[in-house]
Amino acid sequence: METLRGAVPLSHYFLRERVQPGDVVVDATCGNGLDTALLAELVGQEGTVWAFDVQPRAIAATRELLQQEGRLAQVRLVEAGHERLAEFVTPGVRAAAFNLGYLPGGDTTFITDPANTISALGQAAELLAPAGIITIALYTGHAGGPEEAAAVEGWAAALHPGRFNVWRHRQLNRPETAPYLVLVERIR
Amino acid sequence: METLRGAVPLSHYFLRERVQPGDVVVDATCGNGLDTALLAELVGQEGTVWAFDVQPRAIAATRELLQQEGRLAQVRLVEAGHERLAEFVTPGVRAAAFNLGYLPGGDTTFITDPANTISALGQAAELLAPAGIITIALYTGHAGGPEEAAAVEGWAAALHPGRFNVWRHRQLNRPETAPYLVLVERIR
Repeated sequence: METLRGAVPLSHYFLRERVQPGDVVVDATCGNGLDTALLAELVGQEGTVWAFDVQPRAIAATRELLQQEGRLAQVRLVEAGHERLAEFVTPGVRAAAFNLGYLPGGDTTFITDPANTISALGQAAELLAPAGIITIALYTGHAGGPEEAAAVEGWAAALHPGRFNVWRHRQLNRPETAPYLVLVERIR
Repeated sequence: METLRGAVPLSHYFLRERVQPGDVVVDATCGNGLDTALLAELVGQEGTVWAFDVQPRAIAATRELLQQEGRLAQVRLVEAGHERLAEFVTPGVRAAAFNLGYLPGGDTTFITDPANTISALGQAAELLAPAGIITIALYTGHAGGPEEAAAVEGWAAALHPGRFNVWRHRQLNRPETAPYLVLVERIR
């Protein structure tokens, strides 16, 4: 069992509880492919993971990881920004994972863009199945990070409480700049 | 499946994931017995729920509910404040649930006392098994509520990050006074 040590482990905890074999899910920012790999494990051979990234090296890294794990068959890799989500994915999504900021080990000036992120989140929220969730890992330690986090929180706070449960999860005994998680759940 | 609509459903979500049949768990504030009932279901006949409340009517209500559900056998009801936890419970606790504020439907001037609560939380943290959790539902809408919540957050923020993961969960699209949850997890 993973302990809840950080925003990504907490997001995995919610994804593991919610995602079932056969589900359709989205990794909006596949990066090095770690979230894609978890999602591919959870949906199994009957499910589908849509994995987006605007950077070719992220798509290549994710392809390599999933191939190693023998789970590439259930993954659709899309080399495009997540703001194009609704062009590819149809409604009924069980979970969409967003891991914002920059590609780990990559160019730190190449960061997710708040306007694109908010557009993608809006599309993901509309594509969710009842009881479907969006996990959003947020980083405020890099340039542009606080502004992106504020934009995401503003978007999330405006979601109708009759349609969505929206939680912000922060670690009380870690620095203010520690990554944190926003969770959006569509009410069934 | 319960949706994550409020602090208590979110606490139940964590308890359901973590508590296994045969475990020893604590309901530090049994109130009307709803948390005790969930915990009794989760630990099963081989497990033990220690349920504390300083108010006789809370103990009576919990006994009645658990009897109706046929799960009284695995529950030890203790009519005492939770600050006496360590007098009764031995180490190895999988989960301890705290639901602060006042007894639902009871006397709203009879509220949990911050000093007792902090004492009880400290005892619970030391009794936890590795990977054990404490869930703390906090209410700031009644007199004394904000002070108690501040005391709990101060206690939680001071827990050593090498020993405990500490999360605060708030709903972004609800009023500031909405109940919220603090989760403490002992790192294994």
